[in-house]
Amino acid sequence: MDERVLLTGAEGRVGQAVLEGIGDAYEWRLFDRDPPAEETDYEFIVADVTDDEAVRDAMADVDVVLHLAGDPRPEAPWDSVLTNNIDGTRTVYEAAVETGVDRVVFASSNHAVGHYETERKPDLYRKHDDYRLDGTELPRPSNLYGVSKAAGETLGRYYHDEHGLSVACVRIGNLTKGHPPIDYERGQAMWLSYRDCAHLFERCIEAEYGYEIVYGISDNDRKYYSLERAKDVLGYEPQDNSAEFTIEGEPKEDE
Amino acid sequence: MDERVLLTGAEGRVGQAVLEGIGDAYEWRLFDRDPPAEETDYEFIVADVTDDEAVRDAMADVDVVLHLAGDPRPEAPWDSVLTNNIDGTRTVYEAAVETGVDRVVFASSNHAVGHYETERKPDLYRKHDDYRLDGTELPRPSNLYGVSKAAGETLGRYYHDEHGLSVACVRIGNLTKGHPPIDYERGQAMWLSYRDCAHLFERCIEAEYGYEIVYGISDNDRKYYSLERAKDVLGYEPQDNSAEFTIEGEPKEDE
Repeated sequence: MDERVLLTGAEGRVGQAVLEGIGDAYEWRLFDRDPPAEETDYEFIVADVTDDEAVRDAMADVDVVLHLAGDPRPEAPWDSVLTNNIDGTRTVYEAAVETGVDRVVFASSNHAVGHYETERKPDLYRKHDDYRLDGTELPRPSNLYGVSKAAGETLGRYYHDEHGLSVACVRIGNLTKGHPPIDYERGQAMWLSYRDCAHLFERCIEAEYGYEIVYGISDNDRKYYSLERAKDVLGYEPQDNSAEFTIEGEPKEDE
Repeated sequence: MDERVLLTGAEGRVGQAVLEGIGDAYEWRLFDRDPPAEETDYEFIVADVTDDEAVRDAMADVDVVLHLAGDPRPEAPWDSVLTNNIDGTRTVYEAAVETGVDRVVFASSNHAVGHYETERKPDLYRKHDDYRLDGTELPRPSNLYGVSKAAGETLGRYYHDEHGLSVACVRIGNLTKGHPPIDYERGQAMWLSYRDCAHLFERCIEAEYGYEIVYGISDNDRKYYSLERAKDVLGYEPQDNSAEFTIEGEPKEDE
């Protein structure tokens, strides 16, 4: 209960999954440009992540920042991701250095590497295919949103190398509540359950590391992202697997 | 003499090296935000690379773009590289797609990977050390300028994958005229002579490729950048080697 964690983009889906899972484990300060949709007992700052001063102020006495804020739309236009995602993320890293915060956990995205799928789909979404991305590959974004997430990773690398900031970039897959996406092989391959999401971010807060890029997905049979780095360095132990859901959203059988 | 090449940042050092070496080989259209320092016979457009319309207009009937424009200072502040280098480079790729230009050659920089040197210098600047970066490694920028260049590479990857643009990113080393830097091992390791620079960009205009990241240096004994990719894919045949200069700027002996 001692660590104070600043959560930017707290009102987004990832933020909600994190708070649902580990909301009791830390002293949270929530930050979002929209006010809370429901009444909240958490400290809550309404401000924009591109506002240097507001971001610096929000970091007072903070131990770790989970930086989830940004335009989350894969189809977001360039001007928005340039400002909200690239410039906003740089604002967060810079404020962390200026205020003495040691660690930033950055919500990156599967869209940073989406074009690796182009020549391999749909086979790579299936269990028999053992192709894996492991986080050492160069970005191949599938959209400008993905470009902005890759830029946020590179900024993190710079702030780690230059200023000693501990940075984990989590390339989040397809986060859905309750069960995996239905009739969507890609979504089943990169599914991230709510509880695995919360656990993974808890590991990003707790583990020892310098700079890491990890994939944020459950332990899906269909996966084409390696979980080795998240397991080895962070101690991530996913509980879910999209193949185990046999409700209406039953994954298709492998061919 | 048939190909028309748009050269952005034409007044910069790289642009001058290119024109000095292959100024007679193509039909050039020069583009710079500053007017030419000396009278020129080339077509010359004075405009900013962040001006969408000016950039689109400049691409009329162009076959290849050499995109060198941007803030060239390693110590450039974030706001400048965000606008001039990241947003400006995106403007160029986007305009190329819109106007049907097939190829953009992007001037990236050694600063995109400068922090690989941190734990290995000065050994990696010396002939006995066979450590090599080859362009498949993730960026580790040494400054925000380097971050912006890495972002330009990632944008190029996206425009290649998504829109079929042919893109070469040249991580330019230390371009100096006449002889290598004096008493500066790092500069000797990554020296790029004027004639090798012009030849490399000529190969980037002529060769067949989809998306490439190559290092732009001469064939220096001290190099820690691999030239294999530039040689194999582009047909780059460097003529110079910083070790061969024994004038006042004589490189230090290896230890």
